[in-house]
Amino acid sequence: MNTTGNAPPARGPLEGMRVLDLSRFVAGPYCAMMLGDMGADVVKIERPGKGETARGLEPGVDGESFYCFAVHRNKKGLTLDYGSDEGRALFHAMVAKADVVVENFRPGVMEAIGCGWETLRALNPRLVMARISGFGQDGPLAHRQCFDAVAQAMSGLMHMTGQPDRPPMLTGSTIIDYTTGMYAAMGVLAALNARHVTGEGQLVDVALLDSAISLMLSAIPDRAVGGLPLERNGNRDRFSAPGNTFHTGDDRWVLLTVADEKMFENLARAMGRPDLPRDPRFADRVSRVAHVEAIETEVTAWTRSLTADEVVIALEKAGVPCAKVASIDEMIANPQLRHRGQIVEVPHPSGARIPIQGVTMRLSQTPLSIRRALPHVGEHSDEVLHEWLGLAAADIGALRQRQVV
Amino acid sequence: MNTTGNAPPARGPLEGMRVLDLSRFVAGPYCAMMLGDMGADVVKIERPGKGETARGLEPGVDGESFYCFAVHRNKKGLTLDYGSDEGRALFHAMVAKADVVVENFRPGVMEAIGCGWETLRALNPRLVMARISGFGQDGPLAHRQCFDAVAQAMSGLMHMTGQPDRPPMLTGSTIIDYTTGMYAAMGVLAALNARHVTGEGQLVDVALLDSAISLMLSAIPDRAVGGLPLERNGNRDRFSAPGNTFHTGDDRWVLLTVADEKMFENLARAMGRPDLPRDPRFADRVSRVAHVEAIETEVTAWTRSLTADEVVIALEKAGVPCAKVASIDEMIANPQLRHRGQIVEVPHPSGARIPIQGVTMRLSQTPLSIRRALPHVGEHSDEVLHEWLGLAAADIGALRQRQVV
Repeated sequence: MNTTGNAPPARGPLEGMRVLDLSRFVAGPYCAMMLGDMGADVVKIERPGKGETARGLEPGVDGESFYCFAVHRNKKGLTLDYGSDEGRALFHAMVAKADVVVENFRPGVMEAIGCGWETLRALNPRLVMARISGFGQDGPLAHRQCFDAVAQAMSGLMHMTGQPDRPPMLTGSTIIDYTTGMYAAMGVLAALNARHVTGEGQLVDVALLDSAISLMLSAIPDRAVGGLPLERNGNRDRFSAPGNTFHTGDDRWVLLTVADEKMFENLARAMGRPDLPRDPRFADRVSRVAHVEAIETEVTAWTRSLTADEVVIALEKAGVPCAKVASIDEMIANPQLRHRGQIVEVPHPSGARIPIQGVTMRLSQTPLSIRRALPHVGEHSDEVLHEWLGLAAADIGALRQRQVV
Repeated sequence: MNTTGNAPPARGPLEGMRVLDLSRFVAGPYCAMMLGDMGADVVKIERPGKGETARGLEPGVDGESFYCFAVHRNKKGLTLDYGSDEGRALFHAMVAKADVVVENFRPGVMEAIGCGWETLRALNPRLVMARISGFGQDGPLAHRQCFDAVAQAMSGLMHMTGQPDRPPMLTGSTIIDYTTGMYAAMGVLAALNARHVTGEGQLVDVALLDSAISLMLSAIPDRAVGGLPLERNGNRDRFSAPGNTFHTGDDRWVLLTVADEKMFENLARAMGRPDLPRDPRFADRVSRVAHVEAIETEVTAWTRSLTADEVVIALEKAGVPCAKVASIDEMIANPQLRHRGQIVEVPHPSGARIPIQGVTMRLSQTPLSIRRALPHVGEHSDEVLHEWLGLAAADIGALRQRQVV
């Protein structure tokens, strides 16, 4: 386990890169966090005072929300009033030394405070700037407010999630915030690769709505050319049968998917129903999809006679992909996730050890690592201003008195 | 619009990089596709014959599924029986000239055919190999079968999606396949960056289950330390109120979220209920969350009196984030997506023009582009074998007769 207490000796793939993170909420913070996981020196900049609003959300520890623990690891905390003349000058001086700036204000806000792309680029032609917004930097909706849920609604993702006879559903996590942050980080990495060739940085513009529709598989041609209805389908697989969640005798749910004939034979044998593949309704994938209600009735009769664990053990042995629908407690206890280091405890300056997700990408030669927990607001202001700009303690004290830092 | 017919003059950020893609389904293909969008020369390798199973899924055009159109653009098609001795030798010769290999077989399959990481690395120390699997390359569950839905079930994401009094739900697209492919592409980009410094390639190991739990925000500490119940919440926001979907007079759904006091005042005024913020139950965020049923009843009374479009127009004017839950047709018609080039028609050799998603990341200096549609099985075998290995037409003809190509 990589923790603050035991910094790993290996260097991450972005070791030596400097990132300034002005972002809030999830998409921008997660982008900057991943760059930090990769070894970049990331500075989270907040205005002097209480810091980002999300710090105060419950639950948390020592006045800091777990929400912020989850997206602000591997960052140093700097307070800076970059909207003031003096603060902007310091921010510009840091931009001149940075490799990457990440921001997710609404389009126009950075320009209004004298920190638009053309301004920053003139200060540092090697700069990569990731701009994350709801609808992108241009277009008829560019200035509208957006959240993850708005993008889920407008993209058709909600329309496709839920039971056919029930209202459209949001996914149970802010997945569009995450994927947008991931696209931003990918764009930054692509731009850093290009910089090795061209010597110059560039602007990366990603949007929640664009990200959301990128995840819709073939919905666009399926509807526009193929004329499919594309309505909610519950948990039922579109391409194979049986493929759904099934209720078990202990009132749990098991998901199983039969992708080919071999799996169907294996399922039938596990159910003690080796006759099923010989039933003409269930003879092949296309027939089973056409008779999906009938095959689901057969499977349900079997799963209802067992506990969820019994179903999973039987299907694992038979070679049919399946899983119990896990609670959060069950996810946390998953031995595979423990083995992979996907849940790690990170020590916080408060003394608490907070369990959070590990690093998702495993690189063999330059591994990612978790080197520090969520910083307090401005925790590293002195260190960062000294390291980046050579400011002395007295200068920083004076800035703090003037509430610039 | 970038299409095959009009290759853009700008060079992508991965121009000159060579990628071999052995993967099937979504996660691996999407990873390789994004590298192709970035300008890399991507070769999709299939065994001689009908090619990837997913090519045959309905609907499609000219015998090719839209499913494959959506994840196999910007790739050349090569057929190669890399399981045979002769085919493996050709594959190894290509690996020696490649920058990246992408695969998503179950752990052990590549080793069994003489193409494990240690073998490929010995052929090309600069190689980056992305290995995508359900549970990762090691650990107690490594050899179990996994699909997107299995990862959604095991991660707790299904547990958190759906109505509180109804079964757990899958998200309406294979989002874990997508995010795993994105992590793989990010890992590849990070490894290519590191290679500029170290001169050597490395292994990138990503897993569906790891990816799924990375998207769960603060669920791990919220449950393990904070003791929150963490059950399904329908579409209701956990942190603010009102924040939910609301039924409208024309039997549609509108999503709205009130994140702060200003937005609540704006909403109340748009509803013609400027008295609401003075009601002590609705005085601040915490009170409104405590009286969420009451405030939702007030909002529903208003939304039911209007059409969805009327609600959206009123809330846009008032500055309250909102959206109609869009159908797929409405998503396709969205003027912002059109403006951003997020839906593009790609010409296929069959003559058809297939609308698919555009490029999600907008880079200012080295823009991504769509240069070719889904290739036919082996469409570029002659071109690729000549370009990569200098094989003459007669050699390739002989290989084809022996069913190696």
